[in-house]
Amino acid sequence: MSFSTETRGRENTQDYRLYFKNKEGKYISPFHDIPMYADETERIFHAVIEVPRWTNAKMEIATKDPLNPLKQDVKKGNLRYVRNTFPHKGYIWNYGAIPQTWEDPGHRDEDTNCCGDNDPIDICDIGHKVCCRGEIIGVKVLGALALIDEGETDWKVMVINVEDPEAKDFHGLTDIDDVRRLKPGYLEATLEWFRMYKVPDGKPENQFAFHGEFKNRDFAVKTVEDTHSFWKSLISKKCDAGEIRCLNTGVTESPFLCSSADAKAIVDSAHPCGDAEPIPGSVDNWFYYKQW
Amino acid sequence: MSFSTETRGRENTQDYRLYFKNKEGKYISPFHDIPMYADETERIFHAVIEVPRWTNAKMEIATKDPLNPLKQDVKKGNLRYVRNTFPHKGYIWNYGAIPQTWEDPGHRDEDTNCCGDNDPIDICDIGHKVCCRGEIIGVKVLGALALIDEGETDWKVMVINVEDPEAKDFHGLTDIDDVRRLKPGYLEATLEWFRMYKVPDGKPENQFAFHGEFKNRDFAVKTVEDTHSFWKSLISKKCDAGEIRCLNTGVTESPFLCSSADAKAIVDSAHPCGDAEPIPGSVDNWFYYKQW
Repeated sequence: MSFSTETRGRENTQDYRLYFKNKEGKYISPFHDIPMYADETERIFHAVIEVPRWTNAKMEIATKDPLNPLKQDVKKGNLRYVRNTFPHKGYIWNYGAIPQTWEDPGHRDEDTNCCGDNDPIDICDIGHKVCCRGEIIGVKVLGALALIDEGETDWKVMVINVEDPEAKDFHGLTDIDDVRRLKPGYLEATLEWFRMYKVPDGKPENQFAFHGEFKNRDFAVKTVEDTHSFWKSLISKKCDAGEIRCLNTGVTESPFLCSSADAKAIVDSAHPCGDAEPIPGSVDNWFYYKQW
Repeated sequence: MSFSTETRGRENTQDYRLYFKNKEGKYISPFHDIPMYADETERIFHAVIEVPRWTNAKMEIATKDPLNPLKQDVKKGNLRYVRNTFPHKGYIWNYGAIPQTWEDPGHRDEDTNCCGDNDPIDICDIGHKVCCRGEIIGVKVLGALALIDEGETDWKVMVINVEDPEAKDFHGLTDIDDVRRLKPGYLEATLEWFRMYKVPDGKPENQFAFHGEFKNRDFAVKTVEDTHSFWKSLISKKCDAGEIRCLNTGVTESPFLCSSADAKAIVDSAHPCGDAEPIPGSVDNWFYYKQW
């Protein structure tokens, strides 16, 4: 499969949206219309890259917008940029989500004893390549970290781009212990990053289930597949979607299916393109633990 | 004082040069024509930013080119980009040099027992702002690290941009212990960065004089002032310049003084401007300690 993106609005403003198209050039929802699996027998998943490594703008699939384009998260009326928590620069992986998954806020996880955060499941791609915003990649699942964010379960699935030389190598990265062996320090840095990333904004440190231990590949694959079943209920209207927009152009059995013309009308009604605003200089600030 | 820059050649090629101009728009040498002091009574030095924080292209004052523009270092015929040594992204400070200084290769330092590396003295600006390539800033000297690089003394002077809020604050950064207090982890990261940054390219770990201890502000200021006296000998032809080009437009007592017309002729003979080449994707790779 191959996908492409189209910008609307102006970058670094609240109007900015990044819409997705399939290989025929028809608009699609990256949340609902991209298959979860890139290759089911090989357990290769699709991932939608929302935030390229080393950048700060917190872009995310707009679950409550029709067609679910990427948009920048807004907190207290301001565009959200994650802070640089020393020694890190921005996000330390390509960060994104697996399509056709949903962390159901009506489902209490028996391990974490918390409900889902109402978003598709998040991924951290540890491959060498810095991806583009909106890039769709195939990934191998390696493990998962159970972040508890303000009382909600927010799984962070550790993955690697299947195109990475270390993902292809027979001796390469297949499970969580391989990350520990081949990229020493990365899992510890990941834990600290998620623990601390909201602290500079005055929030408490994040907590983790399983005492902050990373679960292995098999556990993580099952977790992703569970969120796929929640998404199936959502898209087939078997549960309450709340504010989630389920409009799609490719899930034939879904009551939310719409035509390509309807999809085009949505994109046509978005804000027009224009010059990007500059990123505020304060986004470059570095925050140090003991100062917080 | 205010300075500006002018590009010649194409970025990310060996033809690229960044020339400097004074506020009258006349070409100058950033090595020789920018005063060492921005404010001598306040001990505020000028610094020429060669490499902005979080970037990789090893740009440097071309000491052996007339007018000493910035150019990218070349090793074994290839443009040099420093590797990302996990958890770091590129250079972890704005990196540059203090004008009108020279680490004299004919002078053996009594502390390090090594000779100078034949370059202006290097600085690491720890301010919040990410500077531009070629930016000239005023800096407060906070301390210094004595790197021994392949048998040569290569001082790294820790400085902070005088425009930084933490440099202006009375309770802010004035000496090396303030860095330890206000930016915990930064000095340790700096030491590790310099120890390791050539290892991914197959070089041995770098060594340090003083067991890797950072010297304080007073020591560092004296070190910088010593290199200024070496530069004075150089620019007045009291010592052998070797391949160093001393052509300048503002050091009136120097035998290397040239006219503005001569300076313009040098820039006019440089390669024409053009589109940048892309940075190789491999520059984004991350290198991990135990893998090396």
